[in-house]
Amino acid sequence: MKTDRVQAFSDGIYAILITILVLQFVVPDYTAGHLQAAVFAQWPILFTYVLSFSYIGVLWLFHHDLFAHLARTTAMLNVLNMGSLFFVTLMTYATSLFAEAITHQNMADKRFAFALYALLEFLISASYYVLYSYLLRHQRLLAKSQEYAYFSHLKYSPLLGASIYLVAFIASFFSTVVSLIFIVSGILFHFAAYWRASKVGRKTRVRESEIPKKKL
Amino acid sequence: MKTDRVQAFSDGIYAILITILVLQFVVPDYTAGHLQAAVFAQWPILFTYVLSFSYIGVLWLFHHDLFAHLARTTAMLNVLNMGSLFFVTLMTYATSLFAEAITHQNMADKRFAFALYALLEFLISASYYVLYSYLLRHQRLLAKSQEYAYFSHLKYSPLLGASIYLVAFIASFFSTVVSLIFIVSGILFHFAAYWRASKVGRKTRVRESEIPKKKL
Amino acid sequence: MKTDRVQAFSDGIYAILITILVLQFVVPDYTAGHLQAAVFAQWPILFTYVLSFSYIGVLWLFHHDLFAHLARTTAMLNVLNMGSLFFVTLMTYATSLFAEAITHQNMADKRFAFALYALLEFLISASYYVLYSYLLRHQRLLAKSQEYAYFSHLKYSPLLGASIYLVAFIASFFSTVVSLIFIVSGILFHFAAYWRASKVGRKTRVRESEIPKKKL
Amino acid sequence: MKTDRVQAFSDGIYAILITILVLQFVVPDYTAGHLQAAVFAQWPILFTYVLSFSYIGVLWLFHHDLFAHLARTTAMLNVLNMGSLFFVTLMTYATSLFAEAITHQNMADKRFAFALYALLEFLISASYYVLYSYLLRHQRLLAKSQEYAYFSHLKYSPLLGASIYLVAFIASFFSTVVSLIFIVSGILFHFAAYWRASKVGRKTRVRESEIPKKKL
Repeated sequence: MKTDRVQAFSDGIYAILITILVLQFVVPDYTAGHLQAAVFAQWPILFTYVLSFSYIGVLWLFHHDLFAHLARTTAMLNVLNMGSLFFVTLMTYATSLFAEAITHQNMADKRFAFALYALLEFLISASYYVLYSYLLRHQRLLAKSQEYAYFSHLKYSPLLGASIYLVAFIASFFSTVVSLIFIVSGILFHFAAYWRASKVGRKTRVRESEIPKKKL
Repeated sequence: MKTDRVQAFSDGIYAILITILVLQFVVPDYTAGHLQAAVFAQWPILFTYVLSFSYIGVLWLFHHDLFAHLARTTAMLNVLNMGSLFFVTLMTYATSLFAEAITHQNMADKRFAFALYALLEFLISASYYVLYSYLLRHQRLLAKSQEYAYFSHLKYSPLLGASIYLVAFIASFFSTVVSLIFIVSGILFHFAAYWRASKVGRKTRVRESEIPKKKL
Repeated sequence: MKTDRVQAFSDGIYAILITILVLQFVVPDYTAGHLQAAVFAQWPILFTYVLSFSYIGVLWLFHHDLFAHLARTTAMLNVLNMGSLFFVTLMTYATSLFAEAITHQNMADKRFAFALYALLEFLISASYYVLYSYLLRHQRLLAKSQEYAYFSHLKYSPLLGASIYLVAFIASFFSTVVSLIFIVSGILFHFAAYWRASKVGRKTRVRESEIPKKKL
Repeated sequence: MKTDRVQAFSDGIYAILITILVLQFVVPDYTAGHLQAAVFAQWPILFTYVLSFSYIGVLWLFHHDLFAHLARTTAMLNVLNMGSLFFVTLMTYATSLFAEAITHQNMADKRFAFALYALLEFLISASYYVLYSYLLRHQRLLAKSQEYAYFSHLKYSPLLGASIYLVAFIASFFSTVVSLIFIVSGILFHFAAYWRASKVGRKTRVRESEIPKKKL
């Protein structure tokens, strides 16, 4: 099976998710002349919006690269991809609860919202690890044999991500500040990993072009 | 007519549907410090979310494979596809009513919500049967003549699905538990059928490649 | 400029529009045990949903065929297409007002809602007429010279559609029943026109293949 | 990396954004028989809808042309594009606040809403400037060397746009009328710039075809 429609479907879901995040912003209750103050009081929504937009954005970048290295897809890969998307869609609700908890600053509610957010990120990282592992076991799906380097290199990235979010999850029961630091670190780590992976991809291609072409 | 835009349009609709399902989750009313209990009380929304996400997901997988076997589309096929999408879009509302009925546990309301959900699934299976039958009667639309095996094999899958949902519909008037079992079974059956169909597809391709190529 | 992204963007908008129509359905207020009666009382939403789903669906089918006949697009065509999409997006609100007016059965409100719905349909037909006329004046954009027959034939279809909706608009001030008949007729007319156009398309292709190929 | 999926993802986001703008329109509270008056009182929503639809529409047209000139994308370009989309998605909320402020006509609230809208437009123009500058520094990404003319010509367009919106932002603190004039001018300027750019694109292509082809 070709990969184009799985990509189109996944792109659609990522694009919709990242866009409906903005529906969290609703015109607040305010007294005439004080709209500015009421909107500024919505900073928790903006904060979690930046967080989740970055997170879903970088997830999409990885998803983009993952499928760019595939020549074909299978029924199993389609189902695994669907499972990964399941957890990603739930991020919108986790984001709403996160903003709600920061707005009202109740410690018990913050712990719960942070734990849920970190747990979901952990599950998403785990689902990406499953996807990469499946591809490494089914290298016939890869576009070129050299791509193996890309995935074997990248395989540990979701594992490391999952570890960071697991720490964030556990930390949320003791300190919401520590939990938040790990949540933010996790997302920054993804951008760094994306950056490194794109360099590995380039190097692989360069090395490949250095190989003397004996026969065609 | 080429099939690419019908696919893109259908992919868009399936992707949006599966994503707006998540809009069912709204931050619940809760007393400060008890957000966790309030969110846990939303388990009926999570349950129906898992159900409908799986159902719409597997429908998309079938839709994906169906069009992957087509070389061309016709005005009639476009209209039949639109009809199928009509019933699929209504699943979001059926899901909301389902979650509502499970939350409040009123028997009469549960019967109605389960019946409506099963009825809609029945109509969707029926619409897929119409699509497959149309393609078997218009084999010139198929990408390769061998694909006939795929569709003649698959034709009975929506019929069996429709039967399961019909039983779930009738059962809802007597026992919501039995109805629910059939609804869940129907979705599991779709995954099993998708699995088998993808194997038939592979076998067909293998057999095809075994045919000695005499002339090109 | 190539047409693929204008198609993808338009497909996205049509797919989203046809899907968010379903957001009109919200779980109604009801007393426990009477969910069925409350949902059945929502028939005006279902009625206008069927109407608008069919209408937007057939519009998309025409849009699909229109761009299938194009080889290239221009800045002007992109802007005209955007203008057409502007009126189409407003259909969701016109549909909500339509359902609202039928639910409460106030004659003045029904007149207004029917008039608005018909007016919007008139503007959409007019925008399609502008699109077709532009293409007939810029035949270099068409994929093959024979396609001219397709557009010169189809050019009068939006004109006739616009006339039907103009009558529906005027009728709404005198009789909502007559207005509704014309609104429904307009949508049925579109399906009939789509049917005929797809036959003209086929005939054109057949005739074309009959032309003895002298030189290649 | 190929550009097709970045385009598909961006198209999806632009299409969703331009479509969910319409969700601002909700059936107003009204006394039976006065739906028309209540809907006519929603003119601020219609006004800001026309404004933001035109603005997001023309942004998409530029985005379309930008990627049409690219042969490849990079990790950096994907991240810059994501940053640009971040500001664009926030336009829906700025539009809601804009409509809210015009509806209630409180001067302080209008100033804030106009300032926010202009500021966001400024940031979007700035993000496009960053995109164009990046492409001019990485010409190996361009589809053909002649395209350099397109971007070096267009580079100043977002700078001029940003200046107009900066004036609109500053003006909002003194006069909302002047601010609005600059906001509207900015959008009209974009359409004019799109028009001119498409002519430059055509000329470049003509000139290119005039170059005598020596060897192939």
